[in-house]
Amino acid sequence: MVKMKEACGLFGVFGDPSAVEMTYCGLFTLQHRGQESAGIASIVDDEIHTYKGMGNVASVFKGRHLEDLTSDKAIGHVRYSTTGDSLFENAQPIVVRYQSGRQVALGHNGNLVNRNALRKELEEQGSIFASTTDSEVVLHLLARMHTQAEDLETALIATLRRLKGAFSLLMLWKDKMIAVRDPWGFRPLWYGKKDGAHLFASETAAFDIVRADTHDEVKPGTFVIVDENGRRDVEYIEEKPTPAHCLFEHIYFARPDSRLFGGDLVQDVRIAAGRQLAREHHVEADLVCAIPDSGNQAALGYSLESGIPLGFVFVRNHYIGRTFIKPSAKDRIAGADLKLNVITSAVKGKRVVVIDDSMIRGTTGKKRIQRLREAGASEIHFRISCPPTRFPCYYGINFKSKGELIASQKSLDEIRDFLNLDSLGFLSMDGLLDCVTLPADNYCTGCWTGNYPVLDDLDDDFERS
Amino acid sequence: MVKMKEACGLFGVFGDPSAVEMTYCGLFTLQHRGQESAGIASIVDDEIHTYKGMGNVASVFKGRHLEDLTSDKAIGHVRYSTTGDSLFENAQPIVVRYQSGRQVALGHNGNLVNRNALRKELEEQGSIFASTTDSEVVLHLLARMHTQAEDLETALIATLRRLKGAFSLLMLWKDKMIAVRDPWGFRPLWYGKKDGAHLFASETAAFDIVRADTHDEVKPGTFVIVDENGRRDVEYIEEKPTPAHCLFEHIYFARPDSRLFGGDLVQDVRIAAGRQLAREHHVEADLVCAIPDSGNQAALGYSLESGIPLGFVFVRNHYIGRTFIKPSAKDRIAGADLKLNVITSAVKGKRVVVIDDSMIRGTTGKKRIQRLREAGASEIHFRISCPPTRFPCYYGINFKSKGELIASQKSLDEIRDFLNLDSLGFLSMDGLLDCVTLPADNYCTGCWTGNYPVLDDLDDDFERS
Amino acid sequence: MVKMKEACGLFGVFGDPSAVEMTYCGLFTLQHRGQESAGIASIVDDEIHTYKGMGNVASVFKGRHLEDLTSDKAIGHVRYSTTGDSLFENAQPIVVRYQSGRQVALGHNGNLVNRNALRKELEEQGSIFASTTDSEVVLHLLARMHTQAEDLETALIATLRRLKGAFSLLMLWKDKMIAVRDPWGFRPLWYGKKDGAHLFASETAAFDIVRADTHDEVKPGTFVIVDENGRRDVEYIEEKPTPAHCLFEHIYFARPDSRLFGGDLVQDVRIAAGRQLAREHHVEADLVCAIPDSGNQAALGYSLESGIPLGFVFVRNHYIGRTFIKPSAKDRIAGADLKLNVITSAVKGKRVVVIDDSMIRGTTGKKRIQRLREAGASEIHFRISCPPTRFPCYYGINFKSKGELIASQKSLDEIRDFLNLDSLGFLSMDGLLDCVTLPADNYCTGCWTGNYPVLDDLDDDFERS
Amino acid sequence: MVKMKEACGLFGVFGDPSAVEMTYCGLFTLQHRGQESAGIASIVDDEIHTYKGMGNVASVFKGRHLEDLTSDKAIGHVRYSTTGDSLFENAQPIVVRYQSGRQVALGHNGNLVNRNALRKELEEQGSIFASTTDSEVVLHLLARMHTQAEDLETALIATLRRLKGAFSLLMLWKDKMIAVRDPWGFRPLWYGKKDGAHLFASETAAFDIVRADTHDEVKPGTFVIVDENGRRDVEYIEEKPTPAHCLFEHIYFARPDSRLFGGDLVQDVRIAAGRQLAREHHVEADLVCAIPDSGNQAALGYSLESGIPLGFVFVRNHYIGRTFIKPSAKDRIAGADLKLNVITSAVKGKRVVVIDDSMIRGTTGKKRIQRLREAGASEIHFRISCPPTRFPCYYGINFKSKGELIASQKSLDEIRDFLNLDSLGFLSMDGLLDCVTLPADNYCTGCWTGNYPVLDDLDDDFERS
Repeated sequence: MVKMKEACGLFGVFGDPSAVEMTYCGLFTLQHRGQESAGIASIVDDEIHTYKGMGNVASVFKGRHLEDLTSDKAIGHVRYSTTGDSLFENAQPIVVRYQSGRQVALGHNGNLVNRNALRKELEEQGSIFASTTDSEVVLHLLARMHTQAEDLETALIATLRRLKGAFSLLMLWKDKMIAVRDPWGFRPLWYGKKDGAHLFASETAAFDIVRADTHDEVKPGTFVIVDENGRRDVEYIEEKPTPAHCLFEHIYFARPDSRLFGGDLVQDVRIAAGRQLAREHHVEADLVCAIPDSGNQAALGYSLESGIPLGFVFVRNHYIGRTFIKPSAKDRIAGADLKLNVITSAVKGKRVVVIDDSMIRGTTGKKRIQRLREAGASEIHFRISCPPTRFPCYYGINFKSKGELIASQKSLDEIRDFLNLDSLGFLSMDGLLDCVTLPADNYCTGCWTGNYPVLDDLDDDFERS
Repeated sequence: MVKMKEACGLFGVFGDPSAVEMTYCGLFTLQHRGQESAGIASIVDDEIHTYKGMGNVASVFKGRHLEDLTSDKAIGHVRYSTTGDSLFENAQPIVVRYQSGRQVALGHNGNLVNRNALRKELEEQGSIFASTTDSEVVLHLLARMHTQAEDLETALIATLRRLKGAFSLLMLWKDKMIAVRDPWGFRPLWYGKKDGAHLFASETAAFDIVRADTHDEVKPGTFVIVDENGRRDVEYIEEKPTPAHCLFEHIYFARPDSRLFGGDLVQDVRIAAGRQLAREHHVEADLVCAIPDSGNQAALGYSLESGIPLGFVFVRNHYIGRTFIKPSAKDRIAGADLKLNVITSAVKGKRVVVIDDSMIRGTTGKKRIQRLREAGASEIHFRISCPPTRFPCYYGINFKSKGELIASQKSLDEIRDFLNLDSLGFLSMDGLLDCVTLPADNYCTGCWTGNYPVLDDLDDDFERS
Repeated sequence: MVKMKEACGLFGVFGDPSAVEMTYCGLFTLQHRGQESAGIASIVDDEIHTYKGMGNVASVFKGRHLEDLTSDKAIGHVRYSTTGDSLFENAQPIVVRYQSGRQVALGHNGNLVNRNALRKELEEQGSIFASTTDSEVVLHLLARMHTQAEDLETALIATLRRLKGAFSLLMLWKDKMIAVRDPWGFRPLWYGKKDGAHLFASETAAFDIVRADTHDEVKPGTFVIVDENGRRDVEYIEEKPTPAHCLFEHIYFARPDSRLFGGDLVQDVRIAAGRQLAREHHVEADLVCAIPDSGNQAALGYSLESGIPLGFVFVRNHYIGRTFIKPSAKDRIAGADLKLNVITSAVKGKRVVVIDDSMIRGTTGKKRIQRLREAGASEIHFRISCPPTRFPCYYGINFKSKGELIASQKSLDEIRDFLNLDSLGFLSMDGLLDCVTLPADNYCTGCWTGNYPVLDDLDDDFERS
Repeated sequence: MVKMKEACGLFGVFGDPSAVEMTYCGLFTLQHRGQESAGIASIVDDEIHTYKGMGNVASVFKGRHLEDLTSDKAIGHVRYSTTGDSLFENAQPIVVRYQSGRQVALGHNGNLVNRNALRKELEEQGSIFASTTDSEVVLHLLARMHTQAEDLETALIATLRRLKGAFSLLMLWKDKMIAVRDPWGFRPLWYGKKDGAHLFASETAAFDIVRADTHDEVKPGTFVIVDENGRRDVEYIEEKPTPAHCLFEHIYFARPDSRLFGGDLVQDVRIAAGRQLAREHHVEADLVCAIPDSGNQAALGYSLESGIPLGFVFVRNHYIGRTFIKPSAKDRIAGADLKLNVITSAVKGKRVVVIDDSMIRGTTGKKRIQRLREAGASEIHFRISCPPTRFPCYYGINFKSKGELIASQKSLDEIRDFLNLDSLGFLSMDGLLDCVTLPADNYCTGCWTGNYPVLDDLDDDFERS
């Protein structure tokens, strides 16, 4: 079975002598989209030069002397950290040679739902695979299509039409860069411009960091090709489906300072969701506080709408570390949580509204709520700025199976009791859809509603709702 | 000239089988007090076992298998990162042997103002020094005093009476631990208790992380000795001076979830300072925002008091990284600031009150303000939740000389113009003192007022006001 | 152009619970065959588990906790270090998946002379390549053949018949291991047995280290398959060509304690070559000395045959290091050679016979001879225990092009003058062939004679003689 | 108890702009004298700059960019690797400051026999110790003496007169370098000259590597001071004792290409010892072979004298590695010895004379002999080129206590049986003394005879014979 890739980050620069350094900056800004591996592929002397490794951007490129690498074309990729199957072979960009010595580098964000079927078909034709990613499938198809097609674009179009599911792709040849977005537009992908150079990024915040001038979305079902002749957009399918933008990007995955589908600013959506949450689930209380940093914006929105003052209750330790604590000591250092402390005096005897952005397994939330109880909160009202997450994602978010989603296993009353809450409120689906600009049917809400946009060619190993 | 140590962090455990792991947790919590070096000394088989290294806690202890080290007595130290003189020799705890094979480990937070005089005296008696710290002076004195004294306590008292300035010390012998606070109580130092074990920490937040039961301050001019007989407090000077607690700890240095002098919660002091700032420097505006994370609490206070809504304008990237950008590229990636982004739409056309906790050199603030201007803020009102910092610190905060303190070089009007502000307001000295509980004369305000509590034995190399 | 692999080392174990550790020991013993990269692939839970990295065996596996990896089937590979094109992608074993999820690992020693033609053919069929090795070509062919063949063996035979040149291959599936030797037997490959386990190794010394019981050669044009049913040998070509064993393995590449083609012990061949050299190029002298360690055995042979006493003149430093010497200092520390010192008093005023095993570029030899002159040797007679190396190798030894081979560019008299020798003698081709057991035409002597055994399908980029 | 330092290596350069790089080359050449730690102290801007670390020279200075460090004065030290007590604190050069801010770096080779007495005296005067070395004692004494003395030389002389035992010292101040040899001349120490620069080294081979012009011994009981006025020798004791040069340096410790006491070349002494061994313990045999590399020279001598041909039987693997073999696998990979292989056919059915330089515990020899038996040697005659080592060393060689010295525990017949030999022969004491130039009473032979030269102030913890 082909491993899913889950949400990742892409960044590319075409036509700037500092392409590699800018790509480093871009990846650093997109670090939240993946900490398992990072890589940059650039063109040096007409060949692709690759740096990649396991870990976050800073550790992968530490001591690599990026500044010595002169290139005006580069793409970069960060990959999501998952448990247990973290392989160097899966790090991206993937770089291969194919017909006539052509070399290409590819970075992929998203997940193909027909990856197994495609791979089986390719293997039956004698293809060999070095990684367990679905991304390698794309390059195999492209190389095969190219043997029959008259040019690269024809081959690419034929390839893309075979792919089902979520795919934002960034590809680099020695003389061109191509950015592809799937027909549904599941994952974000943006085009930017800085002086004469062309840029691509998963999120617009990465453009801010390198001070790009303007930007616009790579349209669903379209690829943008940039080369010495400039930019050209190619629509590669004839009948475009209704878009299916991942609304969970707004709620959880993207940075607050990024713009997503149609240009909505993530922070605005989150504050609006917090305000809507206050309207839907009002309560009398002394204090609104966020589970940091995920609930920060929604908590502000809730406070502004409800008039209940905001307070800081949880204190995060931003240094990276881990506990070297042997099991026998864990009881002794009772529940040492190196990342988060609670300010007792801020909640003692108070009625507290606690805001988080989502609830997946419910275990972390339970720990946080317990700390508040121990600190002496008189009432705890938990508010979540999205609906209950009840269904797995097929399109690139690493959701557990339904068995691990608390809202799929328990009723709201059961969850409230499990977490030991005075009240619990989730934002309604309609309420959330009111916080974004595009029509409601332009978003994928599969993880909340079980309505999935692309089901035709779904591989057998997906868990059905 | 002896190098100053600047603010550091201390943590110790006496009498718990997980002493080393708890000390790791404590140091991790105190990481903000120093990232230059970290170290833990523990008692293993009646000998002192030391791990120390350059860098932050996580990197120093990475792969050290702390959990394999069984010890029930340990002290730890984190050291402040300063530019240009970062030496392994200066990492603490310092461990030495002296008379009769006795071994002692010492960690020091603070700065002795008569360190050069003491060192000169010792050198004239033939002492040799392995580090450039003033902490080593303490051990030399102790060893010499011990040759004449009948017991350790007598020697320690004689030693401590020779020291002038700021010193919170934590010392470990194979059978006892001693925590010392200077007569003025410049730096914080706390005693805690968890089950049967005795704990010491620079800040109370470190006790929260290991779930200690109770805590109280090590009193100025006192040392606390813990051994198999329990705890005993010894006042080592006869005439105690008026306390001189460092108020800058409240404003800048300590964690918001720690309690300091007399038990004031840092977060409460900072929110109160923000409220007072709103009263002293009101302005009509659309939005209050913090320079994160230093201005967060004061901004909340300002918003609550003024009624002007809080907004998130700056977005921090919490991942650790550095720019591998060659000088020639710096112009191109104009001012790439990997750590902080500004959300343009949040401030465009708005009147913004920007809150920070202090202003030292003014250069970072200038950059932040410029980003807001570029984002289109119509008015920018800068508010600082402490008075103008005009004088160097003699007692352990790494302030630059007056030449580098902007408020020592420019008038407030000049600063306002330099930063390109519509208005600028600093909290008054009295206003700040109203935010804390102890009498006003119990605090050191030297960096703001130039009134220094301990001047008698000041070494010649200090810059006089 | 596909990069040549050059001489490498292979080791494999099938059927011993310590397979991984034994493979580590085997690779360590074969370290001299390649220090660029090292890797081990083993079967864990029916999947191939791979460790590989750049550098020598000790550094690649440092901290990898091989002893925690329980597997009874493993293959390992060390790769030759060449200048300038050292890529992780080229490290072996290469591991891929192909039809029906089958997984295979491959290690390759040798060089295919039709690698470019094969690769072009595959690329035209849409294959993609992740490395620049010719080894990947073998796996592509095998996967394609397998789609048409009824079973693995048929596919493998069809694949092997397409390959021209030198290839000793070791392949691992979850349930079998296959060792292949090319029809000419260019590179060595041995089968061994230890208790119930099957072993494979490039050289027999690796069997000694793990105390294997018996061994025999994998025959040219044959593959040996081991699985739960035991060992089976398959001849995969119908008309076997005359063998073409690389005689340079005996002279230079292999360990003295290994047996090669037909079972000749390398040390015996080298001592015999030294004896023959004494017969062919006698001279009156006071002392015979070796360039260590390459000339040690031949020097002993020369001394024994000539009666001239052996002496130690050069002293090697076996510690690994490199000179951190800036160019400006190089003149000052005149010719600092950290690896080799000369004992002046051992040669001062003496007539010295210096023995080395071969002469490639002549530059190192020149430096050594100059040191002897400076030390005051009265006469220097240089003797080389093989013929002049005049032609490049097509079959896996990293010889430079003819332009870099001194014997291809200069006459013997010119070399003698260039090196500043009193006399120079190379062993004759016939003389060398007398030192080995098999018939003279069973060896490849291409690098000395220009007579190459396999020329039919030679790729265009080989330098012709 | 103060830890003994054991044999180490020293190198220094005064007055060459490449001093640091030359010191690196020198230490690399002296690497055999110590692999536990390495360090270089140099003068940069009138301050001592130190690089030191645990491990061998190459690993300690890897990535340190020595070539960026411009200094014309440097000293370096390598320290012997011992089991169980390897501490960074003990790495040298030790650098301290003392009176009036003077800074000094010190490297020490040898062992003080009155180290505990001196340390106790210093501790009673209030001194503190950062390391467990006896070297730190020297600096404490010097600093104390300096407070009473009118100048450095007077203080140094007073210090040196307090020291008993073996000490070759190299000391660096910002404007001078001083090399000291103890009154008995236990350990070697040489002065060299290269162009205008002054050099010091433990062994002359290090001078060869940097191409020094001339050299002469630092005389026992003398220190050599070099500064801007050139070289000056100072005899610091009035009545010089009879020299006591360590003869074991010739047999085992030093490089064969070094000259030691009085200028004897180590290789010549070892060959002469082998010849003498042949005369004292002749036997009829087919073959003489060495345990490499320690027995190489003596084996050559034995072969030359006896006329029995030399052969290579043991093959060493010079790559650095270690076995990652879990205990349960050790039996399976029966006795895997990654470092040494035996060529069976070279000894099968042969009468073999095996030569080694010394026998300490006898366990390694036993393993080697057993391998020869397994390989089928018909007779094994073991010859050792020094007398039986029966007594511990007090002066800096890390000999085990008598309990661990096989010759102290067993008779020669018992050793012969224990090792399963046909005959065993040790060189006689007189025979060995005949191989060196100076009078017999100029050497320390304590480890063989139990006659120790300096016993007056021996600390209590030494094992008495």
